Amino acid sequence: MRVLGVDPGLTRCGVGVVDVAPDRTATLVDVVVLRSPTDLSIERRLRRIADGLEAVFDEHRPQAVALERVFARSDVSTIMGTAQISGVAMLIAARRELPVALHTPSEVKAAITGYGRADKKQVGTMVARILGLDAMPKPADAADALALAICHAWRTGGVAGEAVRDAASIGRVEADAPGLTPAQRAWIAAERSAAVSGAARRLRE
Amino acid sequence: MRVLGVDPGLTRCGVGVVDVAPDRTATLVDVVVLRSPTDLSIERRLRRIADGLEAVFDEHRPQAVALERVFARSDVSTIMGTAQISGVAMLIAARRELPVALHTPSEVKAAITGYGRADKKQVGTMVARILGLDAMPKPADAADALALAICHAWRTGGVAGEAVRDAASIGRVEADAPGLTPAQRAWIAAERSAAVSGAARRLRE
Repeated sequence: MRVLGVDPGLTRCGVGVVDVAPDRTATLVDVVVLRSPTDLSIERRLRRIADGLEAVFDEHRPQAVALERVFARSDVSTIMGTAQISGVAMLIAARRELPVALHTPSEVKAAITGYGRADKKQVGTMVARILGLDAMPKPADAADALALAICHAWRTGGVAGEAVRDAASIGRVEADAPGLTPAQRAWIAAERSAAVSGAARRLRE
Repeated sequence: MRVLGVDPGLTRCGVGVVDVAPDRTATLVDVVVLRSPTDLSIERRLRRIADGLEAVFDEHRPQAVALERVFARSDVSTIMGTAQISGVAMLIAARRELPVALHTPSEVKAAITGYGRADKKQVGTMVARILGLDAMPKPADAADALALAICHAWRTGGVAGEAVRDAASIGRVEADAPGLTPAQRAWIAAERSAAVSGAARRLRE
């Protein structure tokens, strides 16, 4: 299943494309951060981002589209740009007859890290680990777009997505427990490795 | 100058097209309220409205586009749909290389009625009067879209738009005062006529 994830934004719009196999293994297809200069008019900025999005759709022909569900936050001008870009991305998907799913940031974090309040670094680290990348995708918009795409494939895969959401704390599960997602296994391993290096650091100090 | 005004919305999207002559006379070209069923997915609703908008653009070939500037209000779900549609409308305009202008509701009310806090009925009445229509365009989304288009033509016409905004109360100006816009003259006449019928009604009672 090829999923295109969009972290919508007018200044930076993260777009990630992943292939996810039935065994939930995820492979990076492409990741790009579309930008539009702040000195352009809003309609030209929207067009710039829309053109970039369509180029990614045309090149990689995703089967599904995942977007971050936008909530009202304190900064009104940011919400508007984000909502406008999300409208444009949904329109592009709808015109290609592609299904669109919205996921909240905490759903994405829970699916990817096993923890709904993970920070950006944890998400980025896990995305790199899941996709077998040497480094965390940067900027955060790129990692978020990939996380959305992976989250969508896993959640629509059925049971496992729910299992991840229900595992409120990864501390409660063992890395070799049955039914764990690759993300959960990798995260637990990463946590242990961090704990080990933390211990080593403390020994040195 | 042919202006297309959009009162953006996911459930009802008002679209009005007017021709405005150099002497500021405005003529109705078309007005339509695009709708999308609430039981469709958001992306299909956006597509439905986008298709309708493009049909109006294709049929009437406007030279400029005016949109209501969206502000954050209490109802988050409404803002999102409104912002998404406004993004889609701006994209459609940008892809046709058309200039897009945003006007706040109070700017529109001031330009059309001479009073920035006019209610919907006052705006609708004035729109009908300005365009020489027998009845107020309905629903309010239709009247608002036409008001936006007229407002845009008048405000970009230069001086007069500012003059209208500065006339905080139409009570301070006379109908035959120099520099008044047709809207202001018509509004003052309407106010007087209403006052007269109010007086007549009171006499009968």
